[in-house]
Amino acid sequence: MPTMGALHAGHRSLIARAVAEHAHAAVSIFVNPLQFDDGDDFARYPRPLGEDLATCEELGVSTVFVPSAEAMFPPGSSTTVSVRSLCAQWEGAARPGHLDGVATVVAKLFSLAGECAAYFGEKDFQQLVLVRRMAQDLSLPVDVVGCPTVRDAEGLACSSRNSLLSPGERDAATVLWRALGAGRRAVVSGETRPEAVAAVIADVVRSEPLAQLDYAAAVDAADLRVPRTCAEPAALRLLVAARVGPVRLIDNCAAPRPTEAVPPRGAAAATGSVEGVAASVGGE
Amino acid sequence: MPTMGALHAGHRSLIARAVAEHAHAAVSIFVNPLQFDDGDDFARYPRPLGEDLATCEELGVSTVFVPSAEAMFPPGSSTTVSVRSLCAQWEGAARPGHLDGVATVVAKLFSLAGECAAYFGEKDFQQLVLVRRMAQDLSLPVDVVGCPTVRDAEGLACSSRNSLLSPGERDAATVLWRALGAGRRAVVSGETRPEAVAAVIADVVRSEPLAQLDYAAAVDAADLRVPRTCAEPAALRLLVAARVGPVRLIDNCAAPRPTEAVPPRGAAAATGSVEGVAASVGGE
Repeated sequence: MPTMGALHAGHRSLIARAVAEHAHAAVSIFVNPLQFDDGDDFARYPRPLGEDLATCEELGVSTVFVPSAEAMFPPGSSTTVSVRSLCAQWEGAARPGHLDGVATVVAKLFSLAGECAAYFGEKDFQQLVLVRRMAQDLSLPVDVVGCPTVRDAEGLACSSRNSLLSPGERDAATVLWRALGAGRRAVVSGETRPEAVAAVIADVVRSEPLAQLDYAAAVDAADLRVPRTCAEPAALRLLVAARVGPVRLIDNCAAPRPTEAVPPRGAAAATGSVEGVAASVGGE
Repeated sequence: MPTMGALHAGHRSLIARAVAEHAHAAVSIFVNPLQFDDGDDFARYPRPLGEDLATCEELGVSTVFVPSAEAMFPPGSSTTVSVRSLCAQWEGAARPGHLDGVATVVAKLFSLAGECAAYFGEKDFQQLVLVRRMAQDLSLPVDVVGCPTVRDAEGLACSSRNSLLSPGERDAATVLWRALGAGRRAVVSGETRPEAVAAVIADVVRSEPLAQLDYAAAVDAADLRVPRTCAEPAALRLLVAARVGPVRLIDNCAAPRPTEAVPPRGAAAATGSVEGVAASVGGE
């Protein structure tokens, strides 16, 4: 599992799964300078190495790899791995160079690891799709496994950056999950226009004074492009990004294809259906 | 050994060396569309597959890998590997996208091969430096071995594109090697200005009516940058590229650092020294 450390419940769930499924589990902890487009964000990224090592030991990790930046990128290094079709939109557009930095460091870590399975959280959904595409395109012998996002009781996705939020900002940050729930309900209710679903998500985020929307979208889960209709892709994914206080947060969820959704037959039935779906989403 | 087929004496020397040094030798034959910036060049690139397979068998190759373009780059592929510091100059400038195409396909072939040694001719010197850099930067477990260029009696470097030359063009093409010899003699004679050495090479190429110069340069062999003086880099390399008839040809040679060269002590001594160096160069 490639990580940047600051291990939280999301990482713990990945690690526990890897330990359960394999004889040996390895975790890398490396705050990768290539994937930060913002020097301040890099500087203040939490680095509780002692706690992280204790977490790894407690969970039964065999190997922890904690390289220096000089070891990973010695002077003269100049190779970049880029997934062209995925690096220009959403997180790629918001954070220039970020996804190339991710693809480059993960390609190197995959080379070092050799044949293995690698576990990534769905929270960074574009990263998961990109890493899977990169490993396949370069024939790296790594099985990329996506794992459900771990959330707190209010739906806030675990993120190392959550520790930088004040209590009030933390409450406000739950708006991302509430917004995704509204978007999902719109799809379930029969909305097939991706831009209309995106608008539903965006409106909920805008209702939170402490949140500043970056983007909201309903996309094809395979390539993160906006489809012509929500029914077009085999799997639909809802994405949202917003700044809350000092940090930028992202989240996402699956949405059923409109053909799979139960169409509302009346106000009462529709309400019931929506609640049912929202509850199952909350369990992800 | 990654190859594009049309195996010539240069490839044969790589293959023979790999077979001698390893229990198993594998050759890939793949005319990589990513590394052609010119569709005509791609279309007419020679593809004598039957002869190539016979050559591999004769030389004791264990495995020949002949993938289709669809197998290497299925629909949706979109990962590019780029060595930024090397892809903008010389061949990178002359052939946009060419070196990214080389880096991408070789990264994939290296991933497929796993731990091994890979043999590359020095004829494509920038490619050799780039592949070595890429493998190191991405920690691919491949030892990149550079092998001396194989030449005919007149010094023309073996190239699959030589088969596209008329007899007269083939004679003209020897100007590249003669030009490099002149450049090398200039360094041996004490010329320390890279641009002056480049001018010596360029002048010889321009003296051949059938040749059209693309570039000539004296560079640091490690990163292909033009040094301030020929004495600066640990190893100096002379590069030349020219169009002869329907094809574009490249060549290169090592040059001693001026400090290593015997300075001329008079006309007779200088001539002797120059001839001696030229003869040893011809044996590469």
